[in-house]
Amino acid sequence: MLEVTDVSAAACCAPLVREPLTAGEAEQLATSMKALADPTRLRLLSIVAASENAEACVCDLIEPVGLSQPTVSHHLKVLMTAGFLERSKRGTWAYYKLVPGALDRISQLLVAS
Amino acid sequence: MLEVTDVSAAACCAPLVREPLTAGEAEQLATSMKALADPTRLRLLSIVAASENAEACVCDLIEPVGLSQPTVSHHLKVLMTAGFLERSKRGTWAYYKLVPGALDRISQLLVAS
Repeated sequence: MLEVTDVSAAACCAPLVREPLTAGEAEQLATSMKALADPTRLRLLSIVAASENAEACVCDLIEPVGLSQPTVSHHLKVLMTAGFLERSKRGTWAYYKLVPGALDRISQLLVAS
Repeated sequence: MLEVTDVSAAACCAPLVREPLTAGEAEQLATSMKALADPTRLRLLSIVAASENAEACVCDLIEPVGLSQPTVSHHLKVLMTAGFLERSKRGTWAYYKLVPGALDRISQLLVAS
């Protein structure tokens, strides 16, 4: 089972090209990266993010990735635990929304200029 | 064994929040992410990148991460195969240099604004 944790704490730091990451910072960033380092999760995140209001119903995520609902739900949970998505329930369906700033924080840590 | 590939092809695409990644784009980006999703590799990359001229001798990378030379060399090779580092040999030692633009390309794919 992939261990994931909230990304917000990894947001503290300067871009990794500016000064060497500490062991703790590297652990946190690697944990966030692991949540992203899967093609299905990247596609799910991308579909949610590109949807209106950066939000999508789980019912609209199954077909595009061509996987079972439990598998899709597992991947969504990993992205949620890692702080990239948040979930709300309306009626029968769960909706997933991009957490504002979460991807940008990772992006800024990797920026080289 | 982690499969890695050149990141340059993953550089083609719009930020993943702008339009959904295709399956092929997601595979490529996930492969690059896997190379980064390891705390030792992030630290090595960060130490190299923060060094003068974004270049460091392998002899200066062993001690900071506290691992054996073969282990460090394995991680450096993964980063090289993924297109983040390039290697040159001068005298006895190998030097690793950040590939210009490689981290920025990943950063730009993740940017949300």
